[in-house]
Amino acid sequence: MPSNRRIVITKRPKGVPTLADFALVKVDTPKLSDGEVLVRNHLLSLDPYMRSLMDGGDSYIPGLQLGDVMTGHTVGQVVISKHPDFKEGDYVWGPGQWQDFAVLKSPPMRKIDQNLAPLSAWLSPMGLPGWTAHIGFLDLCAPKSGETIVVSSASGAVGGFVGQLAREMGLKVVGISGGPEKCAYAVSELGYHACIDYKAADFASRLTAACPDGIDINFENVGGVILETIWPLLNNNARVLVCGLIAQLNHTSPYPGPDLMKLLKARATMRGFVILDHLAKVPDATRQMAEKVAAGTIKYRTHVTDGLENAPEAFIGMLQGRNFGKAIVKIAS
Amino acid sequence: MPSNRRIVITKRPKGVPTLADFALVKVDTPKLSDGEVLVRNHLLSLDPYMRSLMDGGDSYIPGLQLGDVMTGHTVGQVVISKHPDFKEGDYVWGPGQWQDFAVLKSPPMRKIDQNLAPLSAWLSPMGLPGWTAHIGFLDLCAPKSGETIVVSSASGAVGGFVGQLAREMGLKVVGISGGPEKCAYAVSELGYHACIDYKAADFASRLTAACPDGIDINFENVGGVILETIWPLLNNNARVLVCGLIAQLNHTSPYPGPDLMKLLKARATMRGFVILDHLAKVPDATRQMAEKVAAGTIKYRTHVTDGLENAPEAFIGMLQGRNFGKAIVKIAS
Repeated sequence: MPSNRRIVITKRPKGVPTLADFALVKVDTPKLSDGEVLVRNHLLSLDPYMRSLMDGGDSYIPGLQLGDVMTGHTVGQVVISKHPDFKEGDYVWGPGQWQDFAVLKSPPMRKIDQNLAPLSAWLSPMGLPGWTAHIGFLDLCAPKSGETIVVSSASGAVGGFVGQLAREMGLKVVGISGGPEKCAYAVSELGYHACIDYKAADFASRLTAACPDGIDINFENVGGVILETIWPLLNNNARVLVCGLIAQLNHTSPYPGPDLMKLLKARATMRGFVILDHLAKVPDATRQMAEKVAAGTIKYRTHVTDGLENAPEAFIGMLQGRNFGKAIVKIAS
Repeated sequence: MPSNRRIVITKRPKGVPTLADFALVKVDTPKLSDGEVLVRNHLLSLDPYMRSLMDGGDSYIPGLQLGDVMTGHTVGQVVISKHPDFKEGDYVWGPGQWQDFAVLKSPPMRKIDQNLAPLSAWLSPMGLPGWTAHIGFLDLCAPKSGETIVVSSASGAVGGFVGQLAREMGLKVVGISGGPEKCAYAVSELGYHACIDYKAADFASRLTAACPDGIDINFENVGGVILETIWPLLNNNARVLVCGLIAQLNHTSPYPGPDLMKLLKARATMRGFVILDHLAKVPDATRQMAEKVAAGTIKYRTHVTDGLENAPEAFIGMLQGRNFGKAIVKIAS
């Protein structure tokens, strides 16, 4: 069996993770049992939820213990199979973690069709970000044509799809993103009606001006001051789907939320959304997103970092918004 | 036409209202038009929402202008009728305001059956507090037998009914109230499994001990530090119905809310609830509450202040939790 490089967590980060919180270790890949498959990971998806797992306990899924391999979804190719439905050379998606080789079972591993779209698409529109956008927006935000939606992290892995789905459905789509380049991309490529740079000094007044009819839906990926700026603009019966709070992920103390008097007076609903609770809808969301990618109505962008050994640095950069496009690490090709 | 005493708003309160924010004025009652009825108000309901209206603009319903009569529901008796369905002596419920006499139309005025329950019941279980509890709890909290609900202001006008409805449905019912007397009443009379005094030094640890399985539903009437204490105990998929925020009503600056990271990780839903949005369900809720009162399965308590001229002081006291039972002003009998 081949030797396996893995990135493990060695320390609990205080605030923003540092390279010293990770280590690259080498281990032998284990012998396969019946029903298992050895997968050569090609691409690894980096996602904000991983930061929460590094804190240990209470999170969406069981937290990481020190010494554990970092959690993550990968796409790769079957090297050895002891599963009757998978053969050497098959391309698969699965929870392959931050490592060269993964031993996977099916489910959750499943085959992907590399002829349908580039391999990276299975970590983006047809992966976790695409499912999150499709299910979160269409199934949980009760969108209606003509309403105004504000999407934070508008050009990000999830936000980019939410914006495009909302535009396709006839909503007024306003994005919030960091810097003029991402904002321009959101408008010119993703179809946002407007995208406001949260780093601009007059962010609040620009957002207000971009939402003359107020805000009916907030698909929230960021939290912190961005949510606080959105908050007073919420219309009656507004829906706030809290999908991510990347601005708060690295906070070491509780981060005060917005004044609930507004929630009460606006009869607003705010809901925490974790895609793992909605896995039954994933096959349908994947199929629909694949159709939209094939039809060219859904665009996406990737930010690929080369080399497993560079995953920690790429992850830290993503948490600080330094990537532009879905953060992916190329482990092999 | 008789002379009419009214309590009007003369100043916008800063924080807790003072007597100087109100004035008693005398005016003539206007001539009735066809379809109108002159009602002698007997009982006036005092409710927390009135505090919001005193701030003017943005609230559940249009705010009060300086000089306006204070808003309020009353029960009373028809004195003169120009409406074919109402005759002198009929008992009615309506938006009679803080005054001796009201000119009302139907709807919203409607007849009440004074043989079914005491007049005050139409301002309590069969009035706004009863509707709020019945519709808010049963229709919006998705309660399931065996779940744990925490009700703040547990012995209050709305909370008292929520607790009783929840107990009847088989939930574990934990109240929060101010002082040992109200807590004892909540347990011995209203059927709460436990009621925690928020004024006790060990409030947080007592609440935690009373909810060994966490909290599935929070029917929130208070906000502020009470909601902050509930917050970490919320279970996955918890529902927080924000019905009132009496602890924050008198705040002159925004009051920071709880950390939304908990909402996200717990996949919790928080919803602002204003009964005025659910008026179509009121007739059914009124009928069901009347049946429960008649059957003795719903109990209630009133805190009656004598004299319209004392309504401002009673209102100020209610905002500070000094009443014990539904706050009512007896204007006439």
